[in-house]
Amino acid sequence: MAVRLQIDATRGSARAGKLITPHGEVETPVFMPVGTLASVKGVSQDVLEDLDVQILLGNTYHLYLRPGVETIRQMGGLHRFMSWDRAILTDSGGFQVFSLNDLRKVSEEGVAFRSHLDGSPHFLSPEKAMEAQIGLGADIIMALDECTEYPAGAQRARDSMELTLRWAERCKSYFEEHKHEVPWARTEAAELRSAGRTRASAHTRARATQAVEATQALFGIVQGGMDLELRRESAGRTIDIGFPGYAIGGLSVGEPRELTRDIVLSTLEHLPCNQPRYLMGVGTPEEIAQYAQSGVDMMDCVLPTRAARHGLLFTSEGKVSIKQARYAQDESALDAGCDCRVCQRYSRAYLRHLYAANELLAQVLNTVHNLHYYLATMRTVRAWIRAGNAARAVTTR
Amino acid sequence: MAVRLQIDATRGSARAGKLITPHGEVETPVFMPVGTLASVKGVSQDVLEDLDVQILLGNTYHLYLRPGVETIRQMGGLHRFMSWDRAILTDSGGFQVFSLNDLRKVSEEGVAFRSHLDGSPHFLSPEKAMEAQIGLGADIIMALDECTEYPAGAQRARDSMELTLRWAERCKSYFEEHKHEVPWARTEAAELRSAGRTRASAHTRARATQAVEATQALFGIVQGGMDLELRRESAGRTIDIGFPGYAIGGLSVGEPRELTRDIVLSTLEHLPCNQPRYLMGVGTPEEIAQYAQSGVDMMDCVLPTRAARHGLLFTSEGKVSIKQARYAQDESALDAGCDCRVCQRYSRAYLRHLYAANELLAQVLNTVHNLHYYLATMRTVRAWIRAGNAARAVTTR
Repeated sequence: MAVRLQIDATRGSARAGKLITPHGEVETPVFMPVGTLASVKGVSQDVLEDLDVQILLGNTYHLYLRPGVETIRQMGGLHRFMSWDRAILTDSGGFQVFSLNDLRKVSEEGVAFRSHLDGSPHFLSPEKAMEAQIGLGADIIMALDECTEYPAGAQRARDSMELTLRWAERCKSYFEEHKHEVPWARTEAAELRSAGRTRASAHTRARATQAVEATQALFGIVQGGMDLELRRESAGRTIDIGFPGYAIGGLSVGEPRELTRDIVLSTLEHLPCNQPRYLMGVGTPEEIAQYAQSGVDMMDCVLPTRAARHGLLFTSEGKVSIKQARYAQDESALDAGCDCRVCQRYSRAYLRHLYAANELLAQVLNTVHNLHYYLATMRTVRAWIRAGNAARAVTTR
Repeated sequence: MAVRLQIDATRGSARAGKLITPHGEVETPVFMPVGTLASVKGVSQDVLEDLDVQILLGNTYHLYLRPGVETIRQMGGLHRFMSWDRAILTDSGGFQVFSLNDLRKVSEEGVAFRSHLDGSPHFLSPEKAMEAQIGLGADIIMALDECTEYPAGAQRARDSMELTLRWAERCKSYFEEHKHEVPWARTEAAELRSAGRTRASAHTRARATQAVEATQALFGIVQGGMDLELRRESAGRTIDIGFPGYAIGGLSVGEPRELTRDIVLSTLEHLPCNQPRYLMGVGTPEEIAQYAQSGVDMMDCVLPTRAARHGLLFTSEGKVSIKQARYAQDESALDAGCDCRVCQRYSRAYLRHLYAANELLAQVLNTVHNLHYYLATMRTVRAWIRAGNAARAVTTR
C-alpha cells in the first residue's frame, strides 16, 4: 500500500490519526504548507522541520516549467532535490493551467496552454500530468481534473464533471502502468546496494527497503461545481474508479464562503470513512479548524505564506496588518499567546520596521509565524478530537 | 573603559585577541557582517548566532531615515530593538551621505543632503552624528569624517583631512558630554532594579551592572586620501585627539587595489599597538585575510552579503556564479570543504534552481554560506596567528 490512513480517534465526523507514507508518518488532520517551486518561500528546510511540518505541497505546473521535471527526476526526485525526507504531495498542474492562462484551450485530449514565464506553448494531458508527477516523485500525486469555473450553468457543470471522470480513468491507467518508474526506485535502490556493501545502519537499510517497495499514491478529485447532486454523483463514480484517497476540488473559485461550506459538508458524506479526504486550497485558520472538525484529513492553502509576505499576520487575537504605524514603538510580541521563534524573540516594532523598510527578513519571519499559527491550529484540533469530550470549541481560537 | 583590546598572540605585525565590549567579547581579527537596517538581509538573528557572529555593523544613515533614531532610542537602543545582545558597531552616516547623495553640500558646520527615499532635506554635523549614534546605542560608534573622493588633488586632500580632524574634535567633545545618555542606561538600569526585586540570576544582575557602568566607545578615523605623508599626519593628529580605537577610512573609493594595500600597510605603522585598528569597507576574502595578517583587527564589507544576493558565492576553490546552467544537475555541495549548514544540506543544483527561479530562499541560503566563508576565513587567520609558526599561508585559501 502506497499510503494508508490509520484512524486513532473520532469525535462526531472528525477523525484524528496518521497518514502513513513512504516518507514518514503525518499526523492528521494536517495542514500542508505550499512549497510551490520546491521551497516554502523564504523558509529553509531545517526551520520547516523545527516547525514540525510533516508534509509539504509542491506545484507541478511551476516545477514543470522550472527547473523542469527531467532535472528533478535526474536528481532522484523532489525529496532528494530539495533535501526534504518527509512526505510531499504534488498537485496535477491543472489548477495553475486554468488560473494562470487566459489563452488555454481544453479538449478531450487535454489542455493546451502557454507558459506564464515566456509564452512558450505546452500541452497537459492526464498521461502527461502523471508522467510529470511520477518524475517529481512526491508521495501523493493528484489526478488531472478540470476545475469548473464559477458560476457555471447546469450543463456546463455536468460536462466538466464528466470530463474530469474520463481524465481520472486515464490518470489511473497511466499511473498503474508506470508507477514503478518513480525516481526513488533508482536512487534508493542504489543506496540500498551501497548500504549492503558498507556499514550503513539497520535503520538506513530498513528505510531504503521500505522506500523501494513503496510507490506513490494517486488521489482522485471530486468535482461537480456548486451542485450538491452532481457532487454526490462525482464522488460515487470517482470511488468506483478506485483511489487510495479522495480530494474535493473546484472550491474557493469565487463562490460565497457559505456555499463552499455546504458543498464540503455534503460531499464529505459521500466519501469513504477509512480513506484520506483532502480539501484543496482552503482556507482561513477558522475554516481549516472547522473543516478538520467536520472530517477533512488534509488541507493546503497559500494564505498563511502569501499573507505573510504582504505583512498580514494571524494571531490568537485576530489578524494584524504589521505595516501599520501604530506598531512602530510596540514592544510587545506579535502574539502573546504564541510560542513560535518569532514571537519569542522579536517585538511588533521590529517586525513593523522590517516590513516598512522592505527587508527580506520581514518575509522570512512573517512566514515562519503564520505557518506556526496554522500548524498550531491543527495541533489544537487534533487534541480536541483525541480529547473526545465537549471541551471548548476550537473555532473560537 | 568602554571597549578594550586584549592581545593574546602576535605573529609578525598580526595580532590575535579579544575586543571586550559592553555586549560581550569579540575574537579578533574579526569580520563584521553588515546589518544595514538592523538586519543582515534575509538572515535571522538565531542563524547569525549559530554562525558565531560576535559583532554586527549597522548603518546610521539608513537607520536615521528608517525607523528613525528616536524610535530605536525609545525601544532601548539597537540591541534591544533587533533582539541582538552581542556587540554592535555603527558608522557615522557620513559614507552613505557622500555615496548616495549627488546633491550633498559640505560646509564647515556639516553636510546638507536629501534622503534617497523621499528627497526630504536633512543636515548631518559631527554633533548630530554623535547624537544619532548615542541614540542607536551601538557598543562602538564612529566619528563623522569626510570621505575624500578619488582622485583628489594635493590641496583638496589636505583640506579634506583638516576638516575631518576638526570634526573629530567636535565629535569627541559632544560624545564626552553626552555619552551617559546611551539608552542602555535607562533600560538596563530598570532591569537592574527589577532584578533586585525578583529572583533574577546573579548572572543577570552582574550583566545589568556591567552594562550600566559601561558606555559606548568612539573611534577616530584616519583620512588623507592616497598620500602616505598625509595619512601619517592624519594618524598622528587623530591619536593626539585621543580615541580608544582607530579606523582607516577613505579607501575602496575607486583606487587600484595595490594602492589600497600600500595605504593600509603604511597607515598601520602609525597606529598604536595596543588599541583596536579597524579597516573600513574592505574587501574580498583574500584581502581580509591579508589585512588581518598585516595587523588589522576589525573589518567590514557588504561584499559577502551583497554578492550572495546576486548569486556570487565564495568557495575554497574560487568564486561560483550559481546562476550558470552548468550547475543545473550538479549534485555536489557548493563547497566540498565547507561545513556550513547550506553546504551540508543542499546541492549546487538546488541552489541554482532557487536562484534561477528568483526564490527568496536563494538569497537566504547564499548569504548564510558567504558569511560562513568570511567568518571561517577569519577563524583560520586567528589560528594561524596563534600557531605562531611558518605554517601554510592562509592567503592561499
